[in-house]
Amino acid sequence: MTFEQMWADLAPVGRSDATGGYLRQPFTAAEEEAQAWFAAECARRDLTVVTDAFGNHVAWWGSPTPDDRGVLTGSHLDSVRQGGAYDGPLGVVSAFAAVDLLRSRGFEPSRPIGIASFREEEGSRFPLACLGSRLATGILAWDDARELRDRDGVALADVVPGPDARPDAAGWLDHVGAFVELHVEQGRALADVDRPVGVASMIWPHGRYRLDFTGRPDHAGTTRMEDRHDPMLTYAMTVLAANKQARLSGQRATFGRVEVDPGSTNGIPGRVTGWLDARAESPEALEALVDAIARQAGDRADRDGTAVRLTAESVSGAVSFDAALARRLAEPRGWPVLPTQAGHDAGILSGAGVPTAMLFVRNPTGVSHSPEEHAPVEDCLAGVEALADVLEDLAR
Amino acid sequence: MTFEQMWADLAPVGRSDATGGYLRQPFTAAEEEAQAWFAAECARRDLTVVTDAFGNHVAWWGSPTPDDRGVLTGSHLDSVRQGGAYDGPLGVVSAFAAVDLLRSRGFEPSRPIGIASFREEEGSRFPLACLGSRLATGILAWDDARELRDRDGVALADVVPGPDARPDAAGWLDHVGAFVELHVEQGRALADVDRPVGVASMIWPHGRYRLDFTGRPDHAGTTRMEDRHDPMLTYAMTVLAANKQARLSGQRATFGRVEVDPGSTNGIPGRVTGWLDARAESPEALEALVDAIARQAGDRADRDGTAVRLTAESVSGAVSFDAALARRLAEPRGWPVLPTQAGHDAGILSGAGVPTAMLFVRNPTGVSHSPEEHAPVEDCLAGVEALADVLEDLAR
Repeated sequence: MTFEQMWADLAPVGRSDATGGYLRQPFTAAEEEAQAWFAAECARRDLTVVTDAFGNHVAWWGSPTPDDRGVLTGSHLDSVRQGGAYDGPLGVVSAFAAVDLLRSRGFEPSRPIGIASFREEEGSRFPLACLGSRLATGILAWDDARELRDRDGVALADVVPGPDARPDAAGWLDHVGAFVELHVEQGRALADVDRPVGVASMIWPHGRYRLDFTGRPDHAGTTRMEDRHDPMLTYAMTVLAANKQARLSGQRATFGRVEVDPGSTNGIPGRVTGWLDARAESPEALEALVDAIARQAGDRADRDGTAVRLTAESVSGAVSFDAALARRLAEPRGWPVLPTQAGHDAGILSGAGVPTAMLFVRNPTGVSHSPEEHAPVEDCLAGVEALADVLEDLAR
Repeated sequence: MTFEQMWADLAPVGRSDATGGYLRQPFTAAEEEAQAWFAAECARRDLTVVTDAFGNHVAWWGSPTPDDRGVLTGSHLDSVRQGGAYDGPLGVVSAFAAVDLLRSRGFEPSRPIGIASFREEEGSRFPLACLGSRLATGILAWDDARELRDRDGVALADVVPGPDARPDAAGWLDHVGAFVELHVEQGRALADVDRPVGVASMIWPHGRYRLDFTGRPDHAGTTRMEDRHDPMLTYAMTVLAANKQARLSGQRATFGRVEVDPGSTNGIPGRVTGWLDARAESPEALEALVDAIARQAGDRADRDGTAVRLTAESVSGAVSFDAALARRLAEPRGWPVLPTQAGHDAGILSGAGVPTAMLFVRNPTGVSHSPEEHAPVEDCLAGVEALADVLEDLAR
């Protein structure tokens, strides 16, 4: 079973014929089909699968214990809405291919090697990214998660058993001595330096903020332009200001979601709510970025006769991956070490104290979370070999 | 039954306790309750009610025929979502009060006088304003309307019988010799000239346009600002350009509705769709306004690496009300004659060839389509007297 065969088997699962985008929301039919593929690949290799109370699967080559901890790799199989083929699956397929490569080398690990399939990494159904790994590590308490609901009102507790039903909720975590996640790069840093594989140094701090712009609902025809209190104008100016501010400072700011009340074509809105995704190279830079955006939004609100209120919905500090581990992997092989602006299960496990590293595979266009996301097969195979080398290094 | 008593009876129907706004979407419980109030007021005055195949009610004092046509007044009882108390109901309540005043004066009309309650004037449930009057006049064909659906997927044909079930679909129209609609002003023109009542000269041309901005969906964290093709930026710039263009030219332009795909906080959108409501004093001015907005949107799209496509969803030309009738009503009484930027059933009946006039009642703030919409009771009573005078003039 080659990398290419596995890739071809998994590729059609949850792919929209209309757009070519993936719709693998966790615990829906398409994503369950991907998990069934995972189970079949584990069975083919005689791996022992553990499924925890949150739906995460961990498959072991060998039998780890708290005193003989294993080296875990893997990633996730869920996608954002209309996402691409590589984000998540590349790490899982590469894990199987790396195990095959180690076995073909005749390698006999002195520590168990595991492959994880985490659930709801993208936060595309329940509104929190890395949900499975947050719950497994205890970084998120079950009582704060069980009532999380999807757009149809289904609660997380309706789709996973949770620790009440499964007292040993995520006991597999005590068996993990190190975690290495391979992931398609979501930018062009490796393309810029012309290298197929790199190692992550850190994850940028990241915040999600809700901005409520309020004005006065009014008639779109009869209200003179100069008499309006139109929050859509304040929103629009804030979108442009956020973009400019992020560009000038080398950080990131995005408005990807907006809601309008009442949302009538023929009415000036009473309220516009926009969500700001902001990321920066340090907590200080993130704070400065958001402060600058909020200040410009407030200035424009004064001019528009509107009001704006900013609420931080979630703010994550920087994640620094295990520096010694990154050096150990990168230096002998001459791999570049680079930061990422995206959240990952690896960031959660690192935050929970597991020595963690990430490998990135080159993405020529840098496009991500899109049907156009792509990595050439030669680079994917280089990634498999890199991952096999790392696992051999750590499980020797 | 005084104006104030009727106003107090109708005021709570469909009003939200939370916001004070009205939710009288047509053919829902709240609006049906308002129609039941209408029927009771008709019965109290021994008016003969005709209900047509589209749900419109017309109540007659007297018995009109095609050879002895009546003078029709009235308005509508439905509201925009979270609308105000006056838009529509003021014309209906004033009509009953005017009939009472005529009777108390001992006036015996030589032509029948009717009171109309049109349905779905606001287009707040089915996506077309003046739906009842458009269907009654035949300006909109039933076959083009029967499949119009509300947000829950209910078709118009599910809630009204339509002409298949009722061959004499809107025969009452042949009994109408003139229509006079009284309406709260939706701007401040009467307040500016300090007059309680005015007469409409025309309705401005009005268009609704859908603008589809397309870019490239991408990751909100990892995509460098300079690598993006973000249609939200093009949308935002277009909102600001439309506002500025309308301000400079003395016209109107509004973005009150926007939809984002995929609409994720952590993703650069692939598509943003905004709806432009534009109105101007002439068809030429409207075309110039929309052209200028489209040109600026296109220029910005070039800079953003996005594309924009503008689709006219509906464009209505100017409505000129019967000039002789407006002069006959306004000149002897010294009422100001002014244009309006809002659509009305009166515009539809005028377009269908019915000699039509509109009376406006002063709105001190000009606020409309909002819970804050208001007219002082003295002005409302002046409106009742003006309407009674007009009906007496026309039915003498």
